[in-house]
Amino acid sequence: MRAVHEAIRHYAELAWSATAAGRLRPARPGSWVRELLSDAIGERPERVEHVAAQLSQFWAAAGEPWLHPARMAYIPATTSIPALVAEVLAATRNSHVWPSNIAAAQWERATTDQLARMLGLAPGLTWAGGGAGVVLGSATSGVQQALLGALIRTRGLRWRQDGVRGDERVYVTSQTHGSVARTVLAAGLGQQGLRVVVHDPDTGAMSATELAAAVAEDVADGLCPVMVVATVGTTASAAVDDLVALGAICASRGLWLHVDAAWCGAFAVLPEHRNLLAGNAFASSLVVSPHKLLRTGLGCSVLWTRWPDAMAAAMAVDQPYLANGQPGEGVDPRGLQLPTGRPDRALVLGMTLRCLGQAELRRLLRRNLGLAQRIGIWATAQPQLESRTRLGLVLLRVRDGSQATQALLDAVHRDGQVLLSSATIEGQLWIRIAPGG
Amino acid sequence: MRAVHEAIRHYAELAWSATAAGRLRPARPGSWVRELLSDAIGERPERVEHVAAQLSQFWAAAGEPWLHPARMAYIPATTSIPALVAEVLAATRNSHVWPSNIAAAQWERATTDQLARMLGLAPGLTWAGGGAGVVLGSATSGVQQALLGALIRTRGLRWRQDGVRGDERVYVTSQTHGSVARTVLAAGLGQQGLRVVVHDPDTGAMSATELAAAVAEDVADGLCPVMVVATVGTTASAAVDDLVALGAICASRGLWLHVDAAWCGAFAVLPEHRNLLAGNAFASSLVVSPHKLLRTGLGCSVLWTRWPDAMAAAMAVDQPYLANGQPGEGVDPRGLQLPTGRPDRALVLGMTLRCLGQAELRRLLRRNLGLAQRIGIWATAQPQLESRTRLGLVLLRVRDGSQATQALLDAVHRDGQVLLSSATIEGQLWIRIAPGG
Repeated sequence: MRAVHEAIRHYAELAWSATAAGRLRPARPGSWVRELLSDAIGERPERVEHVAAQLSQFWAAAGEPWLHPARMAYIPATTSIPALVAEVLAATRNSHVWPSNIAAAQWERATTDQLARMLGLAPGLTWAGGGAGVVLGSATSGVQQALLGALIRTRGLRWRQDGVRGDERVYVTSQTHGSVARTVLAAGLGQQGLRVVVHDPDTGAMSATELAAAVAEDVADGLCPVMVVATVGTTASAAVDDLVALGAICASRGLWLHVDAAWCGAFAVLPEHRNLLAGNAFASSLVVSPHKLLRTGLGCSVLWTRWPDAMAAAMAVDQPYLANGQPGEGVDPRGLQLPTGRPDRALVLGMTLRCLGQAELRRLLRRNLGLAQRIGIWATAQPQLESRTRLGLVLLRVRDGSQATQALLDAVHRDGQVLLSSATIEGQLWIRIAPGG
Repeated sequence: MRAVHEAIRHYAELAWSATAAGRLRPARPGSWVRELLSDAIGERPERVEHVAAQLSQFWAAAGEPWLHPARMAYIPATTSIPALVAEVLAATRNSHVWPSNIAAAQWERATTDQLARMLGLAPGLTWAGGGAGVVLGSATSGVQQALLGALIRTRGLRWRQDGVRGDERVYVTSQTHGSVARTVLAAGLGQQGLRVVVHDPDTGAMSATELAAAVAEDVADGLCPVMVVATVGTTASAAVDDLVALGAICASRGLWLHVDAAWCGAFAVLPEHRNLLAGNAFASSLVVSPHKLLRTGLGCSVLWTRWPDAMAAAMAVDQPYLANGQPGEGVDPRGLQLPTGRPDRALVLGMTLRCLGQAELRRLLRRNLGLAQRIGIWATAQPQLESRTRLGLVLLRVRDGSQATQALLDAVHRDGQVLLSSATIEGQLWIRIAPGG
């Protein structure tokens, strides 16, 4: 138990004080870690405290400090004390989402339905409204399920029988997360299956006119449009697509609209940002990842869909070795994921949201936005910098160009006070500052 | 912290005493759970202890008791105190496998290489030998990666460019786990992409002669054989395929052999069962899931591959928004999974194996086999029952037929002392008894 106390104490210190957490050193090459560990699994048991201490040592030297308050790289990844407790509860039960594990399935339904209401999602995306919400490990798993649902909705049972035809098309922009391109490859559509639609260089949003034209052109060419991926908060620049405009095109064409709101969708919990998800009624599926801003810890991404039966039909396989005569209820949760079972992440999500409460969640989200705004105000006051602040992200570049911007980023990392990342947008290098707290 | 102590105490009691754990009641329908929870996420924070208590109540009424010592349904799912502690450590760090998270990547390499040695895997499947081992959440994710690797090895960059062609074939038996069929669908090959090879009805193993004939026939028909899936421990009957015989065919045809040893591969840790994985040198990829028998808790499945570069090439996508100038090392771990990042499950695997030690792991595996043997000896003494014991599984049926067998299973579940499952094998219903302890 000492190792558990020690870990939680460490987390608490880190979460509340950048000073306690120390400088952010660049990681040392790690082959020494592997050498130290090469015969670590011995005949006799090793003390838990010993392994925990060694782990701390490795982390200090070569670990990525995900929870360090000065880590403002990539996208925030947040957790909380209730999430940690929930992890322990889930682990002590080894809880799995499974047809006969009725408590877990119902908990997942209740939790995802409530989060949907907090975000202002259309009833059709909730269990109560005939849709479904499931807690998967990542937004990638969500878009993968979405694409399978879209394929069977578009191509019907022929897709199940004969597979893809090679004429299916998925519409994205160059700003869409790379996991969509990977998902398109994994589904057997090839790179030709991905059609990159022009976006507005200033807002970063997909052009609805260009989308309509691209779909019309593909239909005229005898191709088969399957899915449009809209983003609420692109990784590079936190750009937000217009779900109403894109959704109207999808509706008129019978196209599956998948909304990747993994990062910035969570801000829709705030009344002043509810409009981020306006138009979600057009979505056939939508992902928000609470592990980014909603304090659940990693591996907690919610997929909602209007078409759970289609998704389940896409993947249904007879498994006569899994009978036990226990009652299942409604949609088999196995239909909404590729693996047979999945760890019970809804337990973590539900406990975190309840034990923080909606008022505290709003306060934390506003603090995150406020921090970005303060950094943005500082940046606009620097004559040598160009900057943009959008939601929880500040982008800045040295006016002298990309080389000078990279030099600034390198200097910041040598200094070791904060950890940032960069993005190439419209051919120019930008430093990204995405505060996590 | 009280909730954490309570959960660990509950786990310890459950793990050590079936009496303390109580009767195994059939689950009640669970809509009442959802109703109770319908407005659970309030404005104000709720006490962690309150949520934990409610969860215990739901679990007692409608939860699947995964860790109950008398749960002998499906396949064992085991955990341990070191695994619980490791979960807490992983959660307090929010640790992710990621190129610049060097400590986690190196820990994963060291741990999977050592487990490979314990299992007697060929050096070519280890990092040290030019292969790779990664800890994924499920065996399904493993076979999905394997199929993507097999597709690019067989079809080359044409597959990345144009997608699947529709002539690709994957070889299984009717005893292969359904996740392979789902993976074939998800890859866009369609049901036609799955060729079911005849198996021996007594051993349950794939017939090498039939495999060779099926591949030859498909090649003659101009089709494109891609992958053979062999199983070490089928779910229905713990059947074990002959990796040497199947591997020789794969080698001569240049076919990717994927070995699904998710369940019974772990027994190869025992010298007396090392032969279970004999022939693994033929494997292009192999999965063992430590969450089944090696006490790590759920979500810990190791994929080894001889061709990490092929897998990475299959899924490589330029992500210019993820730069931070930190050094990566060797194969990008993102290449070996579909999601961009993944929770650091190697931490849990390494800590569990080290803190239990190899001697204790062998003792636990032998206890599992011994328990099945004792049940098997009892079963063979019952004149009205037909039974088979294979590794950690006892199959039994009432000689009067499937209806009588189902009636026996129902009576056992009404009695509530143990929880079992059933499987239909060669048209007959069998009760499966798979002890977890």
